[in-house]
Amino acid sequence: MSLGQGRRPQDFWQQHDPLSKGFCPFCPGNESKTPLEIYTHRPGGSAPNQPGWQVRVIPNKIPALGIEGELDARAEGLYDRMNGIGAHELIIETPEHETPMADLSVDQITEVLKAYRTRMLDLRNDSRFSYIFIFKNCGIGAAANIPHSHSQLIAVPLIPPLIATELDCCREHFQRKERCLVCDLIRQERAGKERVVSDDGSFLVYAPYASRFPFELMITPLEHHHDFAAQTDKQLQLLAGTLRASLQRLRSVLRDPPYSLILHSAPPMHSRWGRPDYWAMLPLNYHWHIELAPKLTRMAGFEWGSGFHINPTAPEEVADFLRHADLNKITL
Amino acid sequence: MSLGQGRRPQDFWQQHDPLSKGFCPFCPGNESKTPLEIYTHRPGGSAPNQPGWQVRVIPNKIPALGIEGELDARAEGLYDRMNGIGAHELIIETPEHETPMADLSVDQITEVLKAYRTRMLDLRNDSRFSYIFIFKNCGIGAAANIPHSHSQLIAVPLIPPLIATELDCCREHFQRKERCLVCDLIRQERAGKERVVSDDGSFLVYAPYASRFPFELMITPLEHHHDFAAQTDKQLQLLAGTLRASLQRLRSVLRDPPYSLILHSAPPMHSRWGRPDYWAMLPLNYHWHIELAPKLTRMAGFEWGSGFHINPTAPEEVADFLRHADLNKITL
Repeated sequence: MSLGQGRRPQDFWQQHDPLSKGFCPFCPGNESKTPLEIYTHRPGGSAPNQPGWQVRVIPNKIPALGIEGELDARAEGLYDRMNGIGAHELIIETPEHETPMADLSVDQITEVLKAYRTRMLDLRNDSRFSYIFIFKNCGIGAAANIPHSHSQLIAVPLIPPLIATELDCCREHFQRKERCLVCDLIRQERAGKERVVSDDGSFLVYAPYASRFPFELMITPLEHHHDFAAQTDKQLQLLAGTLRASLQRLRSVLRDPPYSLILHSAPPMHSRWGRPDYWAMLPLNYHWHIELAPKLTRMAGFEWGSGFHINPTAPEEVADFLRHADLNKITL
Repeated sequence: MSLGQGRRPQDFWQQHDPLSKGFCPFCPGNESKTPLEIYTHRPGGSAPNQPGWQVRVIPNKIPALGIEGELDARAEGLYDRMNGIGAHELIIETPEHETPMADLSVDQITEVLKAYRTRMLDLRNDSRFSYIFIFKNCGIGAAANIPHSHSQLIAVPLIPPLIATELDCCREHFQRKERCLVCDLIRQERAGKERVVSDDGSFLVYAPYASRFPFELMITPLEHHHDFAAQTDKQLQLLAGTLRASLQRLRSVLRDPPYSLILHSAPPMHSRWGRPDYWAMLPLNYHWHIELAPKLTRMAGFEWGSGFHINPTAPEEVADFLRHADLNKITL
C-alpha cells in the first residue's frame, strides 16, 4: 500500500558517532580478557588464545542463555516455563578494530562464513538445541554494543516462533504445489526484475515484495538447498562476494546505516522438525537464505500491537536505488 | 528464562530533551492549521474548529492510509496486494501543550476514552474497515513526532496479524475449555499476586508472565466483556483512574519513559470475525484489554529474526517495583 512519494535514501541518513578508541576485548593482544576461544582461523598456525587469528569464535561473557544443565520444561498453571539453556557465541570477523564487514576481502568474509558453518555443525550434536540462530548487528542503532565487527550465534532449546512460521509456510506450500516456495519466489522475481538488486548466477539479491522495513533485502542461493551448513567452500566464497557487494550498496546509498543480518537455515534433525514426516520433506520444501535489514525506522505502538509494518520506501524503488549504487563510493 | 540479577529501573533512565516550544498544530488557536475536526468535547459549547475544546479528534494530515475509494484486493503472482484504504485519526487529549496523559485529571482522561469509544462506534459503520486500532505513542523514543499529548486511531481493511492471532488463541481456548482465556489469566494472577501491580476491584493491572519488554503491563477489566465500545461512562471513568495511576507508577519508577499504549477490542461484526460461527462466540471468548509498554530496549537482529524477546527484568520484579512506586513523586 502506498500514498504519495516514498522516502528517498537521503531521508534516512544518520549522524555517526566516532568509533570508540577505548579498550576493545575483541582486538588481538586482549585474548586473555575474553573466555577461551572455541574456533579460530589462524593461517600462520599461531598458538590458541594468542594473536595471529583472522577469525575468532568465543563464548559470550554475558550470555543470553546458559550452556550448563539439562532442559527442564514445565507448566506453571496456564503458562509454559523452560529454563534458559543454550549457547551464545561471538564470531569476531577480523583482527582489525576499525574494519566493517563491507570492507573485508571476499576471502576474509568467506572465512567468517566457514566459522558459521563449523559452529552450526558442531552445535547440532547437542540434542538440547532445537535451532542455531546466527545473526549480526552492526552499528549502535542496531544494538551492537561493541563496534569491532562481529556476528553472534545463539543456540536455543525451542524453534524460534518466526522460524517455525516460515518452516510451516514452506511446508504447506510444498504440500499443495509440490514446489519449493523460495524457488517459486526466485522465479517470479527474476522474471519481473523490478525488485532485483543483483543476480550473479549464483545468488539473487532482491527487495522483498511488501517489505517490512525500508531497504530490507533477501539474499537467496539460486540452487535449492535447505541447509547452509552443507554448502561447499566454493558456495561460501560466492556468497561472500554477494554479501560484500550488498553491504557496499547499502553503505553507499544509505551512508553507512546500522543493520542486522539474519541467516535462515534448516533446524537440526533432532528438533521437532526431525520427526519423520517433517524431516523427509525438509530438504525438498525449505531453502536457506539471508535477510539483511538496515535499521532506519522505529517500531512503535502500531507495529508492536498490530504486526503490520509501515514502510515508507517501496521495494521497487529500493531495488532501483541499490542497482545504481556506486560500490566503492562513500561520502560520510 | 533468567540469568543472574535482572536490570533495575535506574538502569533504564534516559536523558530527556526539553519539550519543543515551537509551533504546535495541536494547540488551541491553531485549529485552522489542521484538517477539520471530526469530534470534540467542548464543555462550554464553543464553535467548531475554534478554541474551547477539551478533547479534539482530527484526520491525520499525513495519513498511513487514505480514506477515499473502494477496496481492491488482488493477486500479483504469488503475492497478495491491496490498496491502502483506511482512516487515520488523531485524538488530541488536552488543550495544554505541556501536560502528559499522566497529569490529566481522571475526568479529562475519561473524555479521551469517550472519544475512543465514539470514533470506534462511528467507524464500525464503514464496512470497508475490518479493525479499528487505537494506540498512543508518548515520547520521542516511542516515535511520537509531536510532543503535545495525543492518541491515534487507524482503521484498517484487514484484521492485523497479531490481533488475528490473539482472537484465534482466545477462540481455541474457549472451544477446548468453555472459558474465556483472559478471565482464566486474571484468576491465576489474582491468586498468585506476584505479578499484580494494582487491583481496585474493577481493573487488574499486572506484568504479564514472560513479558516481551521490561515493565510491560496488561490492564484488564475484571468484568468479562469483548467490546471496549460497549463500556458505560462509569466503566470508562474507572479505567481512566487505573490508567492514570499506572502511567504515574511507570513515570515515578522509570523517570518519564517513552511508552506505547494499545487498546485491544473486538473487531466489527462485518469483518471476517462477523461470520456466524465466529460472531456468536466472540462475546463469550474475547475480553478487551489495554497493553502498556515503555520503550526501554532496542529490538535488533535476534528479536526481528526469531520472534523471541530478551527481557532483562522479570515481571515479578517489575510488579514489585511498581507496587511500591510513589505515584506523585517524580525526580527528573
